[in-house]
Amino acid sequence: MGRKILIIGGVAGGASAAARLRRNSEEDQIIMFERGPHVSFSNCSLPYHLSGVIKAADDLVLMNPELFLKQYNIDARINSEVTAIDRQNKTIKVKRIDSDEEYTENYDRLILSPGASPIVPKLPGIESVNVFTVRNVVDIDELNQFVKQMDNKDITVIGGGYVGVEVAENLSEAGYNVSLIEATNQILRPFDYDMVQIFHKVLVDHKVNLIVGDKVERFEEDKVVLASGKTVNASAVVMAIGVSPETYLAKEAGLEIGETGAIKVDKNYLTNDPDIYAVGDAIEVYHALTHTMTKLSLAGPALKQARSVADHINHKSTLNKGYIGSSAIKVFEYNGASTGLNESLIKALDMKINYDSIRVILSDKVGLMQDAAPMHFKLLFEVPTGKILGAQAIGKGDVTKRIDIVATAIKFGGTVEDLKDLELSYAPPFTTAKDIVNYAGYVGSNLLNGDFKQVNVDKVRDLVENNNIIIDVREIYEYERGHIKGAINIPLSELRGRIEEIPKDKPVYLHCRTGQRSYNATLALQNMGFHNVINITGSFLGISFYEYYNDKLKGRDSIVTEYNFR
Amino acid sequence: MGRKILIIGGVAGGASAAARLRRNSEEDQIIMFERGPHVSFSNCSLPYHLSGVIKAADDLVLMNPELFLKQYNIDARINSEVTAIDRQNKTIKVKRIDSDEEYTENYDRLILSPGASPIVPKLPGIESVNVFTVRNVVDIDELNQFVKQMDNKDITVIGGGYVGVEVAENLSEAGYNVSLIEATNQILRPFDYDMVQIFHKVLVDHKVNLIVGDKVERFEEDKVVLASGKTVNASAVVMAIGVSPETYLAKEAGLEIGETGAIKVDKNYLTNDPDIYAVGDAIEVYHALTHTMTKLSLAGPALKQARSVADHINHKSTLNKGYIGSSAIKVFEYNGASTGLNESLIKALDMKINYDSIRVILSDKVGLMQDAAPMHFKLLFEVPTGKILGAQAIGKGDVTKRIDIVATAIKFGGTVEDLKDLELSYAPPFTTAKDIVNYAGYVGSNLLNGDFKQVNVDKVRDLVENNNIIIDVREIYEYERGHIKGAINIPLSELRGRIEEIPKDKPVYLHCRTGQRSYNATLALQNMGFHNVINITGSFLGISFYEYYNDKLKGRDSIVTEYNFR
Repeated sequence: MGRKILIIGGVAGGASAAARLRRNSEEDQIIMFERGPHVSFSNCSLPYHLSGVIKAADDLVLMNPELFLKQYNIDARINSEVTAIDRQNKTIKVKRIDSDEEYTENYDRLILSPGASPIVPKLPGIESVNVFTVRNVVDIDELNQFVKQMDNKDITVIGGGYVGVEVAENLSEAGYNVSLIEATNQILRPFDYDMVQIFHKVLVDHKVNLIVGDKVERFEEDKVVLASGKTVNASAVVMAIGVSPETYLAKEAGLEIGETGAIKVDKNYLTNDPDIYAVGDAIEVYHALTHTMTKLSLAGPALKQARSVADHINHKSTLNKGYIGSSAIKVFEYNGASTGLNESLIKALDMKINYDSIRVILSDKVGLMQDAAPMHFKLLFEVPTGKILGAQAIGKGDVTKRIDIVATAIKFGGTVEDLKDLELSYAPPFTTAKDIVNYAGYVGSNLLNGDFKQVNVDKVRDLVENNNIIIDVREIYEYERGHIKGAINIPLSELRGRIEEIPKDKPVYLHCRTGQRSYNATLALQNMGFHNVINITGSFLGISFYEYYNDKLKGRDSIVTEYNFR
Repeated sequence: MGRKILIIGGVAGGASAAARLRRNSEEDQIIMFERGPHVSFSNCSLPYHLSGVIKAADDLVLMNPELFLKQYNIDARINSEVTAIDRQNKTIKVKRIDSDEEYTENYDRLILSPGASPIVPKLPGIESVNVFTVRNVVDIDELNQFVKQMDNKDITVIGGGYVGVEVAENLSEAGYNVSLIEATNQILRPFDYDMVQIFHKVLVDHKVNLIVGDKVERFEEDKVVLASGKTVNASAVVMAIGVSPETYLAKEAGLEIGETGAIKVDKNYLTNDPDIYAVGDAIEVYHALTHTMTKLSLAGPALKQARSVADHINHKSTLNKGYIGSSAIKVFEYNGASTGLNESLIKALDMKINYDSIRVILSDKVGLMQDAAPMHFKLLFEVPTGKILGAQAIGKGDVTKRIDIVATAIKFGGTVEDLKDLELSYAPPFTTAKDIVNYAGYVGSNLLNGDFKQVNVDKVRDLVENNNIIIDVREIYEYERGHIKGAINIPLSELRGRIEEIPKDKPVYLHCRTGQRSYNATLALQNMGFHNVINITGSFLGISFYEYYNDKLKGRDSIVTEYNFR
């Protein structure tokens, strides 16, 4: 005999659980309740409607109740809000949004997949602007229709997370004047401050009015007023400062809520009620690297949880090794991806972990290929084990590949040594014979072995201001096109003949364009008896990206005579 | 005190060993001998000069002797052929090719990196055609210059390996009439017969005159005569049937040669002489999955070996876990990559391994993205352990990413269960929330668990010819656009209402477009008491690609009313 399984929430996790439940059994009665008018739409694609990449809002809807019924024999009820859970009697109360009709439905098993809702703080004057959020197809359709009929083109996006940046990008692509306001000192938290400067620059290059480190204080008519006093025009305001797990129903029903404020679940995504599961953005999960509970608003994990729940209900064994959090974003012609820990997360959690990091830049494919471009790659690893903790990559090329390789290695507890050993598929249109992931493995284990010392690009301004000795080992013609102020130019090709110019009693900092030649120079000097040579990881290209945005933003004195971004 | 280290061969392995040796020590004297006029060129990029992707042949040269000297203090001697090794006296004999001058050079350590040379069989009439091979910059320059001045545009490439196919593609892109002759029944051995049909089709679509399963018997003036009697015009002939490791020097010096015909080395790439190392295409390596010695003509492994040798000479620990062989190729707008074992290799080696394989097709990114395209993915795994043995992927999108993820998992001894669990970085422009690698993990473990049965596309013709019951669960409008002759159309959306049409006493084969809907149908029928339902893995899209080339080639009767490739 079949059971009756109710699912609250018909997107990502909910729809996925329903389909898997049906594949597991033909007998179960499966009913899915969705408050909105659509089930199973592509959340992550919503921003792409604004630029017209996705032409009609309806295209975002992947399935409808009729198809669910016909293909899966699943009863998908849209416009149906679940207002209460009665755990005693194992029933839920449902309100039809279009008719206000209410009814109860009993269950054998209940799955909560309510998601998370955009946070809209009640700031002074909020009624004097047109505020939008981006959670579902209706939202994006409304936003899109509204901006199309505006008299001017001024839109402000508040919040520099993935959604905020993607909305800003797509609106900008559509020709609007977009301001992007972020209260903290950087957008896109999955990237460290040193890496994210590349995205800051990309946004500015594309005329997005990016403002970081400034808070919205209040609104005036079609205007956003910031803490700094700055005002920004905003005929429309998109609120994307973050999301809050939908826990109202769970709380009311006495289900346990975790310290993060999301629903608490066990290994099998069961709540403290043995008949109620929860999945997706509304729950907290175990982070396999921080060893703490965390909220992950990511589609992949939601689908995995949904499947796991459907299998657990059907007595199939499931796997829960915790999460490491991999994500990706396109920002105009640049791509970014990250996995695992980053430095700001380690600091924010005050993790007691001894780690080191490297930053390398390498061509994303054989340099002779016409679309070859430098890729910026950062790798964090534990000291002294070499265990990989996380990675970030940004570039015009295939960054998600490199991050996914590292994410895979992390899942297996891999080390920097393992990265050296990876055999990656190579042909000139795709990568280099020694891929940047292998290369990062080499550099990482060299650092771990104490073969050389390095300093990151974020320390270079200090070095310059304190008159440290910086040697630029690029060729003269490269130096002349732009260099660090005060840097001495000794090309690698002249190094061995000019070592008498280099002091042995002071620290000597070396760089080139990407760090490869200066790494060779660092080792050469070491092998010639210099014991205090330090390679600048990230090198001139990294320094250029790192300094550019803040120089431009703050109008401060640049530490270089000219930037180089190629 | 420094040692004197000689390196024979100045490309890939040789140049890489030299650079790493220098990083390890400033004291060693390092001399590199290269027979040709160039050191350190990009072998794998050679074919791209023919299409003009790489404009000047000189661009292929990455380093020159002057730069080696200035940047690395390495003595790189071009046009210098090493003609003998005297192990007793630890000297080599060198002949200057331009002056015929001969001299000896002594060594403390010797590294052999001579590579492998293209095989040119002495077929009858070979003097009546213009034969070219593609090994180095001089070769590709000569070929390119020759074809440019030909009166007609007929070129025949013999051999369908990576080099042959890339040369054919690039010549075709340049506007030549290219014939590609392959003696066996398929090109590109890293792909199984069922998968490679996609590339067969792509070549034909691009007007390459592809002939498989036919041998070159002899040549006549500007003509190739095949075993079948067919003749092919060839004002130029490119020989790319394979390469042979350059072992002459090693053999003469009494160094051990392995059963594969390549130089035998130990874990540290030492030959049986404790002062002589060998790396690259000239050696045989241990295959970690076949557990046999094998020849790998791949750039990545050569670089790894070179580094390992340089480190071993400097008493640094090195790693040798054997090789799995990952590779990639672009064939016009399609990309392919593979790693580990494939079915033909398992059969060729008569490996005693119990394995199964799945073929899945999934969109390479969110379907709403404008350049989304189906990706064909094949995964081999051991039964009953689920240990991943190999994978192949072909499509217009990012196939190397998926193969590299699997290659990474293989290095860690991963299973299909592990693939399910991978957290890959997701955003709509890059992939789907459940990536094809995750999806393959799910399908693989379902198969391993006995949750369903499947048959591959290569068995479908037999099924049709033997009048098996094939049910096409696509919608009617899809069926009407082309379907398997004799297949019954019961759309998934009507399945549950029409089960009385499906016999319970006979095997029932199901398919849709890509295999996802038919997988749902398979499970639904099973759960409704049908015990002999079999999903056709690869489905209609796979069948279309599988049958097309052979139908077209052999003019045989198609098993479908119309193909579908989208």
